Amino acid sequence: FSLNLTADCNAVLKALQPIFQEQGMTETVHNWEDHGYLATYIKKNGSFANLRIHPHGLVLVDLQSYNDHTKGREEVDQLLNKVEERMKESFHGNIKRVKRLPAILRGGVIDRYWPTADGRLVEYDIDEVVYDEDSPFQNIKILHSKQFGNILILSGDVNLAESDLAYTQAIMGSGKEDYTGKEVLILGGGDGGILYEIVKLKPKMVTMVEISFDKRLIVHFTSNIDQMVIDGCKKYMRKTCGDVLDNLKGECYQVLIEDCIPVLKRYAKEGRMFDYVINDLTAVPISTSPEEDSTWEFLRLILDLSMKVLKQDGKYFTQ
Amino acid sequence: FSLNLTADCNAVLKALQPIFQEQGMTETVHNWEDHGYLATYIKKNGSFANLRIHPHGLVLVDLQSYNDHTKGREEVDQLLNKVEERMKESFHGNIKRVKRLPAILRGGVIDRYWPTADGRLVEYDIDEVVYDEDSPFQNIKILHSKQFGNILILSGDVNLAESDLAYTQAIMGSGKEDYTGKEVLILGGGDGGILYEIVKLKPKMVTMVEISFDKRLIVHFTSNIDQMVIDGCKKYMRKTCGDVLDNLKGECYQVLIEDCIPVLKRYAKEGRMFDYVINDLTAVPISTSPEEDSTWEFLRLILDLSMKVLKQDGKYFTQ
Repeated sequence: FSLNLTADCNAVLKALQPIFQEQGMTETVHNWEDHGYLATYIKKNGSFANLRIHPHGLVLVDLQSYNDHTKGREEVDQLLNKVEERMKESFHGNIKRVKRLPAILRGGVIDRYWPTADGRLVEYDIDEVVYDEDSPFQNIKILHSKQFGNILILSGDVNLAESDLAYTQAIMGSGKEDYTGKEVLILGGGDGGILYEIVKLKPKMVTMVEISFDKRLIVHFTSNIDQMVIDGCKKYMRKTCGDVLDNLKGECYQVLIEDCIPVLKRYAKEGRMFDYVINDLTAVPISTSPEEDSTWEFLRLILDLSMKVLKQDGKYFTQ
Repeated sequence: FSLNLTADCNAVLKALQPIFQEQGMTETVHNWEDHGYLATYIKKNGSFANLRIHPHGLVLVDLQSYNDHTKGREEVDQLLNKVEERMKESFHGNIKRVKRLPAILRGGVIDRYWPTADGRLVEYDIDEVVYDEDSPFQNIKILHSKQFGNILILSGDVNLAESDLAYTQAIMGSGKEDYTGKEVLILGGGDGGILYEIVKLKPKMVTMVEISFDKRLIVHFTSNIDQMVIDGCKKYMRKTCGDVLDNLKGECYQVLIEDCIPVLKRYAKEGRMFDYVINDLTAVPISTSPEEDSTWEFLRLILDLSMKVLKQDGKYFTQ
């Protein structure tokens, strides 16, 4: 609750106290004087509540309980309804905002929270852990979401879901490019999505190669051409990759499970040129402050080497 | 922390206690005997921590502080780092999972949390409140996100962002339909996105009409043809609607700010037929249990009436 005016902390406490006491909860109150109140209410069944009253008019109520979801949620909702009603009765006209957030579920078999690269909290409707393995480079998870299908998550970083065809189409040029008979180089893309979509378009040759196995960089760019990522994807991300990862070599494609830097250098030296280079980096967080040097040096190196293997009229696609 | 084995609650408390005490925090411990421990740590500056130890091996640490973001976050991170280190030292090999969630920000001017229709918690990178008004039907917000541009939110329900052209294209048939010279009826769509995209394709006539002004239904289907929604969108969602909402009537389109039910009945009676009906409902949550009757009756009524005004070879698009 955000109140319009400076809160009378004691009045808020007095208004809400009876609601918790009716539940048979035991109260402990801490009064900071200049920082307001913290009241803790403890229930016999192991649940508890925190009521934090800030003098400038912010009132926060947190409930924590351990029990089966449906029953626990109903109880919590009823209690929060009472708190909201009482606040509105007591301070109506002075309540600027009321916000109730969904319960956060912790300790379950399935983890529903996968924050974005820029640190925002996002809850997915995960209902199954499909694959969960540690490779020498990273943790690889494939989780099933009712909304998005199977989702590939590398070291906690959400890479791609089966429903993300739009991403693959966008990084290929949104249907405006003609890949027929072309030479294509994909950097990264271990989920097989780009490879699968381009192979359908009858290219001359597609080469897919890992971005980097440099462990210092993997914290920034999860490595998705990792044999174990490929193993997981070819089994559980078939809507994304079809049968293209069943073999590392096909009539018009090859997958190189090696670091792209020496490969790019070799191609540049040999004069091997491409019509398209598609750099499928995972999300680089938006930032207005300088990043660690190594990250940008690495990005610049990849870009420079890519330009060296790109034909005069070639195109470079990336996020 | 999820521990592999039944936790020795007292051992966990003893391991973590010193970390909070070093911060000058005052401890209060509640022992449920059969439900484990709750330790509350209170700091002089108004911050506090809850350490909840469940006997079956779930250990939850919550920190709450009130201060400027950057400084507060650093302090919190340092404390959590110490907790994590200590837990790993004391119980290594028995820790099944460690998960740290991003801080939840409450009480700020900008609310970053807009749960989905199915109740999942999602945080957006909102940096500005662009528009915030109450119409007779609903609260209308337009918030700016660095990632998505301006976002239209009706009574807390995220409708459309400026970056959501893909949604509009999909509900129009993913570029596979020829709208030239066609009669089109849009139900809902008050953000103007579908109207703007179809008008570009030289249709004969596009009519856009509200889904319903029935207040019982607006809880399920936020009403987005509401004069105030149109006012907000034509000013702040121009990447979505262009200039199409500047007037309610153009050469090949009209916007009717009225309930679609009587309009559809009238069209059916007059024999006015359409090549396309596009029903732009907001999200209907996935559910396996029966919904309130009125919701499904309403959906059926709209569908029945739509079929009555659709030409023999006409098409009906919806989510």
